[in-house]
Amino acid sequence: MKLVPEHMELAFTEAVAAGERGEVPVGAVVVSPAGEVLARAGNRVKELSDPTAHAEILAIRKACRKIGSERLVGCDLFVTLEPCPMCATAISYARIRRLYFAADDEKMGGVHHGPRIFSQPTCHHRTEIYDGLGAERARELLRRFFRDRR
Amino acid sequence: MKLVPEHMELAFTEAVAAGERGEVPVGAVVVSPAGEVLARAGNRVKELSDPTAHAEILAIRKACRKIGSERLVGCDLFVTLEPCPMCATAISYARIRRLYFAADDEKMGGVHHGPRIFSQPTCHHRTEIYDGLGAERARELLRRFFRDRR
Repeated sequence: MKLVPEHMELAFTEAVAAGERGEVPVGAVVVSPAGEVLARAGNRVKELSDPTAHAEILAIRKACRKIGSERLVGCDLFVTLEPCPMCATAISYARIRRLYFAADDEKMGGVHHGPRIFSQPTCHHRTEIYDGLGAERARELLRRFFRDRR
Repeated sequence: MKLVPEHMELAFTEAVAAGERGEVPVGAVVVSPAGEVLARAGNRVKELSDPTAHAEILAIRKACRKIGSERLVGCDLFVTLEPCPMCATAISYARIRRLYFAADDEKMGGVHHGPRIFSQPTCHHRTEIYDGLGAERARELLRRFFRDRR
């Protein structure tokens, strides 16, 4: 399997920008089957007063709007952190083909942790998962963000 | 515990309207601690080309925008169907106090079924759950919707 580092790099750019806006630094990028970036987003929960405005949800909504469908068949998602159960379920609904994420999230994650959404018998679309690409960098970004806010 | 049937009635009004738009007929209402209806919404997944546009998510986002906070502390949510894992997680993030839902959803539900979001050790806010109010009516609405589309 060939990883595509420039798309994860773009997700990191969004994560850093989110942190600079005072949001938990997480970024996400949706890539079309042809390799085109359909949408990129960072976390905007505080700015939008919206508990659902995680980077993944915003990127998926943008990409869907762009192609005029609620399904992103064959598209891939790059995220700097393990998606939470809300986002993992949305990723499955959107029919994302491959999910690449950097760092695991032991506390809030919903892919390798907690409800492990894609392993549920009631999960009707199982996205392929590739993790660990840039994990240390994502962890350091989050560590620094939470340290600076103390 | 006193149930508040008029709020569930309003959720049913939204569900019926969603069905008439060709969307899966589910409706949701957010009620403030003082009993004011902060937001009401029906499913708009097809209309908005948005896989996250479930009634609950739309109602929570509207209510949050209205009060200018990503937390709906002390607010209650009335839904005609058991929320899915995405919506259940959003309900927890929004700090909804009480969730009232009508019919169980064996296939897609995430409260009493599937990942049982509020029972996960990683769930940090456990909404109180009251189910069954109008269950048969909600089931009949869904049955008729899916029968008519065949």
